[in-house]
Amino acid sequence: MYRTKTCGELRIEHVGQVATLCGWVDSYRDHKGVVFIDLRDRYGITQVVFQADTPTDMQTIARGLRSEDVIQVTGEVLARGAGLENPKLVTGQVEVRGRELTLLNKSKTPPFEPRTQDLPNEELRMQYRYLDLRRPVVQQAIILRHKLAKATRDYFDRHNFLEIETPILGRSTPEGARDYLVPSRVHEGSFYALPQSPQLYKQILMVAGYDRYFQIARCFRDEDLRADRQPEFTQIDVEMAFVKQDDILSTIDGLMAHLLKELRGEELPLPLPRLTHREVMEKYGSDKPDLRFGMELICLKEIAENCGFSVFKNTIANGNRVRGIVAPGAAEKYSRKQIDELTEFVKQYGAQGLAFFRVKEEGLDSPIAKFFSAEDQQKLIAKLGARAGDLIFCVADTAKVSSAALGALRNRLAKELALYDPKEMKIAWVVDFPMFQWDEDEQRWVAEHHPFCQPHEEDIDILETDPGKVRAQSYDLVCNGYEAASGSVRIHDPAVQQRIFSMMGIQPEEAELRFGFLLEALRYGAPPHAGVALGLDRWSMMFSGTDNIRDVIAFPKNQKASDLLTGAPAPVDTKQLRDLRIKVDVPVK
Amino acid sequence: MYRTKTCGELRIEHVGQVATLCGWVDSYRDHKGVVFIDLRDRYGITQVVFQADTPTDMQTIARGLRSEDVIQVTGEVLARGAGLENPKLVTGQVEVRGRELTLLNKSKTPPFEPRTQDLPNEELRMQYRYLDLRRPVVQQAIILRHKLAKATRDYFDRHNFLEIETPILGRSTPEGARDYLVPSRVHEGSFYALPQSPQLYKQILMVAGYDRYFQIARCFRDEDLRADRQPEFTQIDVEMAFVKQDDILSTIDGLMAHLLKELRGEELPLPLPRLTHREVMEKYGSDKPDLRFGMELICLKEIAENCGFSVFKNTIANGNRVRGIVAPGAAEKYSRKQIDELTEFVKQYGAQGLAFFRVKEEGLDSPIAKFFSAEDQQKLIAKLGARAGDLIFCVADTAKVSSAALGALRNRLAKELALYDPKEMKIAWVVDFPMFQWDEDEQRWVAEHHPFCQPHEEDIDILETDPGKVRAQSYDLVCNGYEAASGSVRIHDPAVQQRIFSMMGIQPEEAELRFGFLLEALRYGAPPHAGVALGLDRWSMMFSGTDNIRDVIAFPKNQKASDLLTGAPAPVDTKQLRDLRIKVDVPVK
Repeated sequence: MYRTKTCGELRIEHVGQVATLCGWVDSYRDHKGVVFIDLRDRYGITQVVFQADTPTDMQTIARGLRSEDVIQVTGEVLARGAGLENPKLVTGQVEVRGRELTLLNKSKTPPFEPRTQDLPNEELRMQYRYLDLRRPVVQQAIILRHKLAKATRDYFDRHNFLEIETPILGRSTPEGARDYLVPSRVHEGSFYALPQSPQLYKQILMVAGYDRYFQIARCFRDEDLRADRQPEFTQIDVEMAFVKQDDILSTIDGLMAHLLKELRGEELPLPLPRLTHREVMEKYGSDKPDLRFGMELICLKEIAENCGFSVFKNTIANGNRVRGIVAPGAAEKYSRKQIDELTEFVKQYGAQGLAFFRVKEEGLDSPIAKFFSAEDQQKLIAKLGARAGDLIFCVADTAKVSSAALGALRNRLAKELALYDPKEMKIAWVVDFPMFQWDEDEQRWVAEHHPFCQPHEEDIDILETDPGKVRAQSYDLVCNGYEAASGSVRIHDPAVQQRIFSMMGIQPEEAELRFGFLLEALRYGAPPHAGVALGLDRWSMMFSGTDNIRDVIAFPKNQKASDLLTGAPAPVDTKQLRDLRIKVDVPVK
Repeated sequence: MYRTKTCGELRIEHVGQVATLCGWVDSYRDHKGVVFIDLRDRYGITQVVFQADTPTDMQTIARGLRSEDVIQVTGEVLARGAGLENPKLVTGQVEVRGRELTLLNKSKTPPFEPRTQDLPNEELRMQYRYLDLRRPVVQQAIILRHKLAKATRDYFDRHNFLEIETPILGRSTPEGARDYLVPSRVHEGSFYALPQSPQLYKQILMVAGYDRYFQIARCFRDEDLRADRQPEFTQIDVEMAFVKQDDILSTIDGLMAHLLKELRGEELPLPLPRLTHREVMEKYGSDKPDLRFGMELICLKEIAENCGFSVFKNTIANGNRVRGIVAPGAAEKYSRKQIDELTEFVKQYGAQGLAFFRVKEEGLDSPIAKFFSAEDQQKLIAKLGARAGDLIFCVADTAKVSSAALGALRNRLAKELALYDPKEMKIAWVVDFPMFQWDEDEQRWVAEHHPFCQPHEEDIDILETDPGKVRAQSYDLVCNGYEAASGSVRIHDPAVQQRIFSMMGIQPEEAELRFGFLLEALRYGAPPHAGVALGLDRWSMMFSGTDNIRDVIAFPKNQKASDLLTGAPAPVDTKQLRDLRIKVDVPVK
C-alpha cells in the first residue's frame, strides 16, 4: 500500500504517530517559508505542513505543488496549536508534519477545481468529468447510491429473494417502437433489442418457480435526453408468486423503512398511506401528489351552481367541475402581474382561465368578487377553510383539465411559498388505477399500466360492458410529487389475458405474434404473481436531495459532449458498418 | 399471502399444525382411493394426501391433478407412519392431509417433467426454458449464483469499496472490431457501442478519486457462441488506487477465502500460491494450469542430448525442448490404438509426434526403446520419477509447441485417469506475464494483456532494447485449468504510456485518436492504480460443479432457438429500420 491512513481518518488520538497519506492537493499556501497543503481524498481533507527546516530538495517539491497534483506524504501527526483548529474538518484538530514527500503525478492546471463554488458550464464539467466527479457533493451522492443499492440487496436477500440476471440482449417485441436495436454480426440481418424493462423475463421466472425475484437492472429507452431522464436507467425490479397486492405493498413498505433507517437514521411509520387513484385525483389533481404539504383541491359545486358568476354556473350545468385551492398567507405575496403569469401557467394544462380571490377580513377581493353575494363569499371562504391574508385560486373546467391545472398550480405555489422542507420524504401508495384509458386518436381502449395487469376481481364482470370503470390491481409508490415505483398484480389466467387483449382490439393471432412466448408460458403452470419496479436513479436523487440526475450517475449521457466519458453516440467508420452487413434497402432521409 | 409455509419447511415439530402450501404437482398417485401428491416449490417437496373420505368435489379435483398443475392446499401436518418416512426429503417425516384444495392454474401436459432423469435435447429445453428452469439442479445453480454475487458484494462493501455503475451505452473505440454497435434514433447516423469491459471507465474513476471501486458488470462481445461462452457475460470488476500488485492479490485472496467459507464452508489457506508465468509454462505447459493433480512436465535435455535417438538429439541440438510427463499406473490402461489417438490429439497442438514408454520392472517398453541404452533408460526413469506400471509420454519440439501439446495431454490424461476430485477447487495466481508478444502476421510487438499495463520497474530500461524479456505487472487467477480472473497494475504516467504505444507501433496521433480521453485524464492527477476482473459466469460454474454455462444463466443465448426466452437475434421490420435512418451506402455482401 502507498498509504497507512486516509485523509479523513486522523484524530487527536493519533497525535505522536507517524502516518503516510496519499491524495490530491486541494489547496496550498506558502506562509513565511512554511508550506501548508490541504490534502484531499474521498474520505476527507488533512492539513500537511512543511516547516522551514525541511530539507531543500523536499522544500523545492513542496513549493512546486499545485492544485490536483497527486502526492504521498509521511510525517508525524501533531495537534494543531490552540486557536488553529479547523472545526469544519473532522481532521481539523491535527496536522501532519511532512518528513517524506513523493510527487506521484503532476497535474496540468485544471480548468476548474473540485472545491470551487463557482461551477463552470455543464459541458465543461462533462468534458472533464473526472474533475467534476472529485467534487464532494457528487462524491457523496455516488457513495449514497452505492449504499442505497447495498441496503436494497441486503433487505431482499434477508427476505429470501433471489437476484437473477436477465438478458440485456433480448428480442424486440413488435410494439417496441422505442427499443434500441443491436445488429448482430454473427446472425446476418438479425437484431437484438435492449430491454425497456425485464417485465416479461420476470414473469417467466415466476412461471419457472423462482417465487421471490429481484434485480437491480439496467433498462433502455431510445428517447431524447431530459434533465431527469437518461436513455439508460436503473430500476429495482421485483416480482413475487403466490401473493396478492397487499403482500407486494407490505414488502415494499418494509424496504422503504429499511432504507430510511439505513441511509437517514429515520423511523418510517408503517404501513405507508394507501390512497386510491380516485381520491388523489380529487384531492391533489395528480396521480403522483406531493404530500409534504396540504393545499388540497376543494370541490365548489354547491356554491358554483347557484352563484351569480355565469362561468362557474355554466361549468356545473355542463357536468364539469369547479374546484379551488388556498395558498396560505399569499394574498399580498402575489402581484397582479404574477397572478397573470400563473394564469398563463395553468393554460399550459388546458385551463381556459384562472379565477382568484384575495381573502380580506371583510370578504373577497377580486375582479369577479362582484358576481358573488356576501353570503356566497362567506360560503366560499368557509368551504375552502380560507383565512384573511390567503389567496384563493379556482379553475372551472372538465374534471381532467381542472385536475391537471390545479395539481400543477398546487405544486408551483407550494414551492414558491416554501411550504415544505425540501429534504423531507413523504411516501405513499396510490392504488386502484383505472384498467383502461380511451385513446381518442386510435379510437380504442388502451391499457393504463400494461396489458398484463389483473383487473379487480369484482370488476371482471363489467370488463366488456363498462371498461372505463374497471379498476386494475395496480399501484404506484409516490414520493414528493414523483412516481417512484409502479407495479401490478399480473394476469396468470390465459383466458382473462385473452379478454383484455380483445378489449384493446388486439386479435388472437396478433396477440400470439406479439406475446406468444408469454401466453404459451402461462399455459404450463403459471402461479398467481405480482410485482413492482422502483427507479433507482429517482430514489438516489431523492435520498441525496438533488434535482440533477448527473449528480447520481457517474457517467451520464450529455446532449452535446461526445466523447467516451459522456457517452454520446458517435459515427463509426464504414468498415464497421460493412462488417455489420445490415440489409438496408431503404433510402435514408 | 396464498401460503403459510413453503414446500421445504415442514418438519416433525410442525405435526398437529395446520399449514397452507402452494406449488406444482411434481408427481401424483391414486392408491386405493387415496390420492398422493408430491407438491414442489423451489424450497423442496412435501407429500400431500387426500384420503378416501375427502368430500367428493375436492376428490374430483384431486384425482384430476396432473404434472405441473399449480395448486393451493390447506391441511393438518401429520407424522408419516413408521416405515413410511422418505429419507431423501428433508420434509420426509411428515405429510399434509388435504382439507382444502384450490386449483390455481391447470398446466398443459409438459413436453418434459422437471424431475426427469432423461433430459430432452437442448433445443426443446430452451424452447420451454420455464420448465427447464424448474429442474432442481438448475435452481440450485441459480440460487448459488445469487449467493455468490451477494457474498462478493458483502465482502467489497465491508472493505470500503463502492459499487459504481458504468454505462452500457458507450462509445466505440476504433480497435473494437467486435463491439456490438447500437444505432441511435435520436442522433442520426451515430452509434453507441456496448462495452467489452468497463476498463476505461474504472480507470477514469481512479483518476476521479474513487479509490476502491467494484462492480458486477455486464459485458459484451459480438462473437459466436461456444459451450462456455455467451455474447453477454458478467464480470466482477475491481479497481484500486494507491496500491501495488500485492495489494490487489491479497484483496482477491480475501475474497476467495470469504466465498469458499460462505458457499462451501471450507477454509482456504492464504496467501494463495503465486507462480510465475515462466514457472507454470515450464511445469505445466500452460498459463492456466490445473493444479488439482501433479503430473508435471519434466525437462529431459541432459538425457536427450546424448541419447541414441536422433529425433531427441537433434531437437536439443536445434535449441528446442524435449520434455516428458508420467501418467501414473497407466501402462496397461492405454492400448496401442488409444495411444495413437493421443498422438493425433497432440498433433492438434502442433506436435510432430508423441513418444511413449511403458515402464516395466526391467526397463522401458516402447517401439523406440531400442535407441536408449539400459543406462539411459534408467536415467530417464529416474529423472521422471516413474515407477513400474506408469506410462511415459515425451514431446520433442519448440518450447511453445511442447508446452501446448504436453499441457493439453496432461489435462486429458488426468481426466481420463480420474486423478482428481472434480468438486475440489484449486486456486492460484500466475504472475509476471510477458509484456509483449511478437505478432508474426503483423510483424510487430503486441500487448499480451493490454497496452495500459505497467511493466516491471526493473524492466523499464530494456523496454525498447529487449521487449521480449519485459515482464508486465499483470496477473491471472487460475482455478482448475481455467483463467478465472485477470488484471494488472495500470500505467499512470503518460510518458510511460507513450513509450508502450511506440513499442507497439502506435503513433502519437493515432494514440490520441484511439485513447485520447484516457491519456488526457492521466494528465490531470492520476493516482497509481491497479485492478482485476473475475468472470462471474465461470466462478458460478466452478462453485456449482457444472460444465454447462446454461445451468448458471437464467436466459442463455442459444444458437438455434430464436424466441425471446433464448434471446437469439431476430429480423426486424422495415419500418423499424427506416426509423433508425442508418446511413449505409455500402453494398451488402
